[in-house]
Amino acid sequence: MAAVASQLVQDMASGSAEHGAEDALTALINLVRVDLEECNRVIVAKMDSPVALIPQLAAHIVAAGGKRLRPLLTLAAAKLCGYPSANRRHIDLAACVEFIHTATLLHDDVVDESLLRRGLASANAVFGNKASVLVGDFLFARAFELMVQDGSLHVLDILSKASATISEGEVLQLVTQNDLATTEARYLDVIMGKTAALFAAACQVGAVVAEQPLRQELALAEYGMKLGIAFQMVDDALDYAADQATLGKTVGDDFREGKITLPVLVAFHAGSDPEKQFWRRTIEALEQTDADLDEAMRLIAHHGGIDATMDRARRYAQEARDALMIFPDSPVRQALIAVSDYTVQRAR
Amino acid sequence: MAAVASQLVQDMASGSAEHGAEDALTALINLVRVDLEECNRVIVAKMDSPVALIPQLAAHIVAAGGKRLRPLLTLAAAKLCGYPSANRRHIDLAACVEFIHTATLLHDDVVDESLLRRGLASANAVFGNKASVLVGDFLFARAFELMVQDGSLHVLDILSKASATISEGEVLQLVTQNDLATTEARYLDVIMGKTAALFAAACQVGAVVAEQPLRQELALAEYGMKLGIAFQMVDDALDYAADQATLGKTVGDDFREGKITLPVLVAFHAGSDPEKQFWRRTIEALEQTDADLDEAMRLIAHHGGIDATMDRARRYAQEARDALMIFPDSPVRQALIAVSDYTVQRAR
Repeated sequence: MAAVASQLVQDMASGSAEHGAEDALTALINLVRVDLEECNRVIVAKMDSPVALIPQLAAHIVAAGGKRLRPLLTLAAAKLCGYPSANRRHIDLAACVEFIHTATLLHDDVVDESLLRRGLASANAVFGNKASVLVGDFLFARAFELMVQDGSLHVLDILSKASATISEGEVLQLVTQNDLATTEARYLDVIMGKTAALFAAACQVGAVVAEQPLRQELALAEYGMKLGIAFQMVDDALDYAADQATLGKTVGDDFREGKITLPVLVAFHAGSDPEKQFWRRTIEALEQTDADLDEAMRLIAHHGGIDATMDRARRYAQEARDALMIFPDSPVRQALIAVSDYTVQRAR
Repeated sequence: MAAVASQLVQDMASGSAEHGAEDALTALINLVRVDLEECNRVIVAKMDSPVALIPQLAAHIVAAGGKRLRPLLTLAAAKLCGYPSANRRHIDLAACVEFIHTATLLHDDVVDESLLRRGLASANAVFGNKASVLVGDFLFARAFELMVQDGSLHVLDILSKASATISEGEVLQLVTQNDLATTEARYLDVIMGKTAALFAAACQVGAVVAEQPLRQELALAEYGMKLGIAFQMVDDALDYAADQATLGKTVGDDFREGKITLPVLVAFHAGSDPEKQFWRRTIEALEQTDADLDEAMRLIAHHGGIDATMDRARRYAQEARDALMIFPDSPVRQALIAVSDYTVQRAR
């Protein structure tokens, strides 16, 4: 496991280097770099099990897993609240947050693999799904084991509630999928659940370990919630952004699955009758031809669906920034504010 | 939800009536009947969510779900330890235990549905799998929310560890599936994880709420662990028991999935070379014809695989009984002892 740990820390270090252009995130990472590296060590150590497939599969997804944004938020929130870096609680709890996130990723993979391979389920695909479900369960249980070791019922309350809310958001997304009658309010419920709830909890936990008054705790939860909403809205916009396609990035995943996102709702409600028919066929009936994604992107651009979504995201990012104003100015506060700016600039 | 609650309590009552022939279980149910009915009300109330699919799907599996053996164990263990029935902690925690069990059932369904419908995945089948994964996640998270409300870190420790152990057992079962090189020790690890760990935790929690000394706590954990092992061994024997088939019960599920269970290991190791080839083809390569299950049952009976498994189960049931001997004699102790007897008599 030592080799895996060292590899992971290297991945993280090079991962942060990749974000050199995104000064905000780099600045935040640099402020808590030692803690983040230690958090990665905890992640690797705690995903171990005598059942070898568990650390193998977990290492695969944890190592592949993005920016470590959620544990970074816990570490940064703790620092913002003056929690001494020599202490360990923020590091262990940041690892819990990442485990919960990883568990949901693994279960999302099952959902996505099922769709991508629909009607073509091989024995191998089935084996992969099973392992993803079960290892996801393990990581989720392990997260609660670690929280119990930390010993704070308040932290357990925040993260168990967030976990239930995430599941509710995911189920609501499933229910609203392929349903153009979904309202914007329901769309907001989905993204608050599936994404923003864990951002909020990750930030709030940082205040809890620093034993801050409730006002500071809730301000950080508010920052995380609004940041998470903005983050997911931008993600939903990028899935239909033509310039992303020219950059070689993946677009159209949401379209192929018939997910109801804000860009689609904007274009659908502003659309002519033939356009509404197009959306009903492609999103509701999931009858899609190769040319349909381009047409969807054209219609969304035509009706300002990307701009409307990005505008909304920028408003939430502004509210995230506002929530931090009760804290005195500091390099961490500046970096957290810059991260919310960065989030709504990802489209460029 | 009130209608669902009332239905569930009726189901439970008629469910216990169905077991009239099994005096042991009926006796135990009668001793804690009021608590068990209240536990069912808690289960229905706490699986509610603004996302309607969650209580719908959860009600389906909770209502369909067997004997409520695990929450029954928590309630009975609490009573054995003199916990006042007027208090509520044992009821809420019994509901948590059932939620954890239901979550694992839902995720097992995904695994099993994938197998049964292999190569025939319909959109409907995919939708079912997704919902099962996500609602299972919700119930698991909700279980931890309820435990946090209970407020005992010791209980949280027991049930979070049990949850991680269950996942490890399930993954180990996946890894050993179709592998006849699996040892009996590994088989024991699988069933201790996937089944016995939650039986043990369910019993131990009853002692914890009653604030018993560690010796009593561990004795009840031991009873649950040994009972769970016996229970699973009998289940594995029944899957190849010819008289079950004549009674119209399902046999052969384990065979079709290539699960490595004790009856198979006994027959495989005692088998001739052609017989070993039969097992390699059917269990390892999963190449099965309609006549193979009968042949598997014949070989297992021929080599005493059922008897050997039942003997082993009876030894564990005896150890379960022995663990209770530190408690003074009482109707609950007698009923718990009778349940372990009943467990190894299920084959008749």
